[in-house]
Amino acid sequence: MDAEQFRKAGYAAVDEIIDYFTNLQSRRVASSVSPGYLRPLLPAKPPDEGEEWGDIQKDIEAKIMPGLTHWQSPDFMAFFPANSTYPSILGEMYSAAFTAPAFNWLCSPACTELETVVLDWLCHLLHLPASYLSTSATGGGGVIQGSASEAIVTVMVAAREQYIRRHCRLAVPQPASEVEAEDGEWRLRTRLVALGSEMSHSSTQKAAMIAGVHYKSIPVDVTDDFALTGRGLTEVLQDLTRRGWEPFYLTLTLGTTSTCAVDHFKEIAEVKKQFPDMWVHIDAAYAGAALLLEEYQELTDGFEAFDSFDVNMHKWLLTNFDASCLFLPCREPLISALTITPPYLQNDHSSSGLVTDYRDWQIPLGRRFRALKIWFVLRSYGVNGMKNHVKRHIGLGDVFANWVKDEGSDLFELVAPPRFALTVLRVKLPEEKKEKATTPFVMSKAATTETKVDEGLASNDIFPLPNEADRGRQIDTLTRTNAVTKEVYERINSNGDILLTSTMIKDCYAIRVVGANEQTDEQHLRKAFEILARTTEEVLRKLESKAGSE
Amino acid sequence: MDAEQFRKAGYAAVDEIIDYFTNLQSRRVASSVSPGYLRPLLPAKPPDEGEEWGDIQKDIEAKIMPGLTHWQSPDFMAFFPANSTYPSILGEMYSAAFTAPAFNWLCSPACTELETVVLDWLCHLLHLPASYLSTSATGGGGVIQGSASEAIVTVMVAAREQYIRRHCRLAVPQPASEVEAEDGEWRLRTRLVALGSEMSHSSTQKAAMIAGVHYKSIPVDVTDDFALTGRGLTEVLQDLTRRGWEPFYLTLTLGTTSTCAVDHFKEIAEVKKQFPDMWVHIDAAYAGAALLLEEYQELTDGFEAFDSFDVNMHKWLLTNFDASCLFLPCREPLISALTITPPYLQNDHSSSGLVTDYRDWQIPLGRRFRALKIWFVLRSYGVNGMKNHVKRHIGLGDVFANWVKDEGSDLFELVAPPRFALTVLRVKLPEEKKEKATTPFVMSKAATTETKVDEGLASNDIFPLPNEADRGRQIDTLTRTNAVTKEVYERINSNGDILLTSTMIKDCYAIRVVGANEQTDEQHLRKAFEILARTTEEVLRKLESKAGSE
Repeated sequence: MDAEQFRKAGYAAVDEIIDYFTNLQSRRVASSVSPGYLRPLLPAKPPDEGEEWGDIQKDIEAKIMPGLTHWQSPDFMAFFPANSTYPSILGEMYSAAFTAPAFNWLCSPACTELETVVLDWLCHLLHLPASYLSTSATGGGGVIQGSASEAIVTVMVAAREQYIRRHCRLAVPQPASEVEAEDGEWRLRTRLVALGSEMSHSSTQKAAMIAGVHYKSIPVDVTDDFALTGRGLTEVLQDLTRRGWEPFYLTLTLGTTSTCAVDHFKEIAEVKKQFPDMWVHIDAAYAGAALLLEEYQELTDGFEAFDSFDVNMHKWLLTNFDASCLFLPCREPLISALTITPPYLQNDHSSSGLVTDYRDWQIPLGRRFRALKIWFVLRSYGVNGMKNHVKRHIGLGDVFANWVKDEGSDLFELVAPPRFALTVLRVKLPEEKKEKATTPFVMSKAATTETKVDEGLASNDIFPLPNEADRGRQIDTLTRTNAVTKEVYERINSNGDILLTSTMIKDCYAIRVVGANEQTDEQHLRKAFEILARTTEEVLRKLESKAGSE
Repeated sequence: MDAEQFRKAGYAAVDEIIDYFTNLQSRRVASSVSPGYLRPLLPAKPPDEGEEWGDIQKDIEAKIMPGLTHWQSPDFMAFFPANSTYPSILGEMYSAAFTAPAFNWLCSPACTELETVVLDWLCHLLHLPASYLSTSATGGGGVIQGSASEAIVTVMVAAREQYIRRHCRLAVPQPASEVEAEDGEWRLRTRLVALGSEMSHSSTQKAAMIAGVHYKSIPVDVTDDFALTGRGLTEVLQDLTRRGWEPFYLTLTLGTTSTCAVDHFKEIAEVKKQFPDMWVHIDAAYAGAALLLEEYQELTDGFEAFDSFDVNMHKWLLTNFDASCLFLPCREPLISALTITPPYLQNDHSSSGLVTDYRDWQIPLGRRFRALKIWFVLRSYGVNGMKNHVKRHIGLGDVFANWVKDEGSDLFELVAPPRFALTVLRVKLPEEKKEKATTPFVMSKAATTETKVDEGLASNDIFPLPNEADRGRQIDTLTRTNAVTKEVYERINSNGDILLTSTMIKDCYAIRVVGANEQTDEQHLRKAFEILARTTEEVLRKLESKAGSE
């Protein structure tokens, strides 16, 4: 492809992308292809001779488009959003042209330096502690990772090595030989435990598998809105240390996947004083975006005590995947754990200590020029534009949640408090209507504050009724609401007008609705509400007529 | 930025990229900025209000461009190439528009299915064993990773878990209790050793740090052209197992970083029969590209016995970073080691077993739609276009190496056989001219075949002279050639007309020259040769006049 062919193809691609974004609503949000749809459409081997771009481009619409799920569609309300925007796409274009596996500063100084600057910008924007700035006295700074899960593996490895460095001498105070010291270190390694709450994203458990350490999931309670509390953490830490385990790492979450719960940072910062060597990471992958609004700034209380914080600009912050922004008040443990400098990577600049070599802040060696798209997005939208974007969705989420609570009160229960544009609901069975007038999360809160907290995952965490005798009926109800909610969910997603995600919250099957795309507006959320209501009525009617005919 | 603003900006970006590629030679290949150049040019915080694209775009040329090192420049002969091409850039554009963190099939089926198809295409193109195809009877297949180092961490974790599964019962044959069995498993974990040759890329050692296992570097010898041999491996394996270590993983290299050496695959496939549970990974990050040429196919002899193979399309294969292609004859160990399925990731398609969820083949959860750019590149160039691209550079590399050997024979010595477009040389001191007529690697081969192989890194591996008495003089010569070669290298790179990389090969300081960009032609390599010759003459003249004046 020569320059003039690329000019034609590039312009056409720009036009096609505009057309795609403009007419997103004319496409079914979820792909309806069956597994294996693509292989029969493509040759078994690449062509011997190069093809014309026109022939290739035609195949995008004909063969790829039917297999796409449209994450930018305003009807996409599943998982968490993955915003992509025009300035961000421009960033990818330039990044691809300037391609460099920018593993160290020398590779392409602008890649490194722009990254440092835009992450400092983001640190200001999100009101993170000043210690997370690259210029902080504690030696902090930010780095762009591929994903929040990659960030977790990275900091967990740093945490593991820092813990070993600090504790090895405690474990083997006076080794008789080097061999004994080394054996002591490796025995200590086998006792390491990484922690997360049961609502933490699975990436913490996966990171523990990768880092080769144990993992312990800490139960949380409906009475705390599924957040990890200082009390809950302390109990587990005391139990673990009593039994000889070494809790070296903890993931806290700002906006859990299932319900957008926020762990109790301030309390846990207090607990950390008793366990200063336990690395605490804040996974704010999605909801961290809300920190740019003044009204959420109090959530950062306690952050000074923690060791790392990660937010994905590629979720709610208008930047296409991937742009996971990891901040640390002290970068040294990361670099210590991940640095190797073979001769072919040595250079005077790196040796000078004046430059940042981001390869030492991450698992891979090479890295893309991802700072460009963040720079373009932050400048194109400005601070106010970013704020309006997030604020608008939070408002829309509240509107949606209110429909569920008011108009939908006969059909639905909220399973957790609506937060950060996410509403989590389940179907309410007709017989439940007679029993209670309020939503279960409010009820359960009132009901269980005086109830003994169950350490397991018993269903009474979800529907605790004041009377123990009602328990059997309660579980029976749960089984039926789960089945009905699941059927509603599956009907909606297979119909494909909107796309939702389901989850299990303790024993309760629930539907998550989160509309936070640039094109999402009240009308789309209204459509989603009406689809939910209509489908639920259909499923309930079917049940009723089935019961009637039996 | 609205649609019409993006149309204008997108067209302008396409024009600017074309201009950048067309006029690359007018730019100094290496950036000449000093550390910290960018921060004073940018505001300390993002702007409150969004800026016009025109203002942002201006800053690319004004503020970013001076800090770029131009990896696409034909004067770029450092590290390994990082090809970027027009079809590949188009791939990034569409990928950014269709953004989806495509962690499972359901997320966007086309992302997964196109990846499976293009990796099968690549498997054919590179003449890899049929077992590496996604359709193989052994359950093989390919996956796109971000980088070769990420691929190594991924397979090392799979190797570790597979080894533990297979050996735990051997380590603790009849555990008295579950606790004893578990302790046994964790004791076994502390004895695991990952292996690579001393010429393996540092990423294997880094992966061992991440996976929390020991690492052992296996010495190689100049007489084997710095390749790992079956004999060398066997010695180390026997020694390790005798001392109670568990060698569970080995990286072999097709094209080492320093000299593009190729480990002896066929011999090592034989060794693996004695150590069937040791995972063998082939790191062919750069030179794997050459496998598309018929004349290199014999290099794949023995591959059937190995467990994984990785090649970077983002080096020599015309695809911008990142596109590291990992193939396995059996994907199961990867999936076993990395699968976690929380409720919000469960879906009928994944449960059906009919679809691939690539999140289970990698460290991160989310992933970009990287298959698009590979598809565009393979179709735009065709098999023949790809072959011509690689073949042309190998030919140019040979031309360059011949200049060094012939015209440059008074000034330079080849340190290793030129291979895959890479030439590695050092300066020859005037006094050496009188001593030998052939290049040292040929000499050393002849001279050491009957010499006892030294286990350490003694300098006689590099300059073995028949007479042991000459050793002192030889080390003295080495020290001086190293200093002179380093000075030549540093003068050239600080001058910035071309960009090279230096390396240490055992005790010898050497300069690497590899021109494998699309725009690299004979004239550029000739210019590089002349710069090398001229600079060497200058440095030697300076030395001579200094010696004369003393």
